[in-house]
Amino acid sequence: MDKNFVVGVDVGGQTTKIGVVDTRGEVLAQTVIRSDIFGKDADAYINALAEAIENVIKEADKEGEIRGIGVGAPNGNYYTGSVAFAPNLAWAADTSVPFASMLTEKLGGIPVSLTNDANAAAVGEMTYGAARGMKNFIMITLGTGVGSGIVINGQVVYGHDGFAGELGHTNVVRYNGRTCGCGKTGCLEAYCSAIGVARTAREWLESSEEPSSLRLVENITSKDVFEAAKEGDKLALRVFEYTGTLLGRSFADFVAFSAPEAIVLFGGLARAKEFLYEPMLRAMNENVLKIWKDKVKIVFSQLKESDAAILGASALAWEL
Amino acid sequence: MDKNFVVGVDVGGQTTKIGVVDTRGEVLAQTVIRSDIFGKDADAYINALAEAIENVIKEADKEGEIRGIGVGAPNGNYYTGSVAFAPNLAWAADTSVPFASMLTEKLGGIPVSLTNDANAAAVGEMTYGAARGMKNFIMITLGTGVGSGIVINGQVVYGHDGFAGELGHTNVVRYNGRTCGCGKTGCLEAYCSAIGVARTAREWLESSEEPSSLRLVENITSKDVFEAAKEGDKLALRVFEYTGTLLGRSFADFVAFSAPEAIVLFGGLARAKEFLYEPMLRAMNENVLKIWKDKVKIVFSQLKESDAAILGASALAWEL
Repeated sequence: MDKNFVVGVDVGGQTTKIGVVDTRGEVLAQTVIRSDIFGKDADAYINALAEAIENVIKEADKEGEIRGIGVGAPNGNYYTGSVAFAPNLAWAADTSVPFASMLTEKLGGIPVSLTNDANAAAVGEMTYGAARGMKNFIMITLGTGVGSGIVINGQVVYGHDGFAGELGHTNVVRYNGRTCGCGKTGCLEAYCSAIGVARTAREWLESSEEPSSLRLVENITSKDVFEAAKEGDKLALRVFEYTGTLLGRSFADFVAFSAPEAIVLFGGLARAKEFLYEPMLRAMNENVLKIWKDKVKIVFSQLKESDAAILGASALAWEL
Repeated sequence: MDKNFVVGVDVGGQTTKIGVVDTRGEVLAQTVIRSDIFGKDADAYINALAEAIENVIKEADKEGEIRGIGVGAPNGNYYTGSVAFAPNLAWAADTSVPFASMLTEKLGGIPVSLTNDANAAAVGEMTYGAARGMKNFIMITLGTGVGSGIVINGQVVYGHDGFAGELGHTNVVRYNGRTCGCGKTGCLEAYCSAIGVARTAREWLESSEEPSSLRLVENITSKDVFEAAKEGDKLALRVFEYTGTLLGRSFADFVAFSAPEAIVLFGGLARAKEFLYEPMLRAMNENVLKIWKDKVKIVFSQLKESDAAILGASALAWEL
């Protein structure tokens, strides 16, 4: 029987999304399991995952027609198929889990391809989304953190060790930069993630008397800042102006590296497109060499948000 | 007849070096012509170059045995074969010269492959030098400027437009950064080129009363700073410490991009290895994610300096 279907698995800190996908990127059936109820027991998690995969394949009525499983996971390594030292996954926080081989074994030999979530998003965008037809682009995922997937000549860059593309941890503020979750200072992620945006708002509220609707909010999140900006709150608008400017500056340096056709943005924070786009584009063009001025596009993911994570991961499996 | 020889052409602002090279990287015959006596007449320059190439092939007694010509030139574009808007070449300063096709025509059809000088150096290092056997590395050329050639999966990265790998123009000092020759501020090249090193020394001499043997030198060059450092001059030593630190910081960000096995250094300023190596390595390791700490090598070119430019360019021609 032809194997014309794949399964996409998106491993997140709280939940794991699983879907059966056809060649046109339609999600035929999907399900969700918890990632965070297995403590340090990786085997128990992989068992639950394998069972959920089998069930969703059954639900889609595609038993025996699955070409492979694509997995996007934090700290997933394409070369080794393992998930190692991923702070948000208790069962892989202080060890290296041979995820792909464990899953293949439990599924009776179905091949598994694994990479980190941002690389999976890049493959998804190239296969089904905003980067179709592009051979050189950089995917930036703006979520809780800032992830990246770099595509050169139509191929994801994995580097010497499988960990290439950690652009969220390049420096964007050298002097007195914020401490990042990774332990370094001044990382892009410390400023331009959802957490970074909320932090900027809180810092600015503390250091000034400027009136803002955000002063009424406890435990400000990036969503609160977004809502306030939509209502015209000036401080919130400036937070996005600042965030977009830092992103654009960083993009300029990324362009000098791989001369991409476009930067493709994805993730919860990318929803603030209306506030981020202009400062981002302006700062990028102010900081690139003349040869690239007004040449590199900034585009936003075209994948349906609810399907995107599964699609991205599933797209990996077509290469198997 | 088998075509087992190539010609390497290294186009510099003042001279153009030409050599016939065999498969083992031996330079069998070489010559030099001026690049700077043709004014805006690109045709006259290419004529002189073609004549010199024919002569040097004759001298090596390899007529009819040349597989191709590899050219490294400032602002050389691999995709288009042209040299465009190269400030240091009068005949290509404000126009785009279809260098490869012009040269092929004058040489009766011998194929020509062209790229910028740093990419040519990367190919040379991979073919004959310190990067033999490496599939992922970043070549940094420390000369008058700072150039770069990025190799991923054994292939030079050219990007969407052929201009990828301008790492000398990524930002290394955000706040109050020096103006770079390119018009931007804070570029790596403004600090870590030969010119940048001299500039650092001059600035520090002006802004302090610190004794230094460099106070006796007029029009300080990087070579003067190097000589002073070798004599133990403390200010000169700190200039290299600072230069190495900035390089290392930038390398850390490059590592986050492509996760290379090594950074390979080449060029006149790389001769100051004894003063640059330690601060470079330290700053890189202080600024990478934990996964890369003490993992990425910094190595120096192993090519004989007098041959290196020709070898780098010639290596391109093997791919023809």
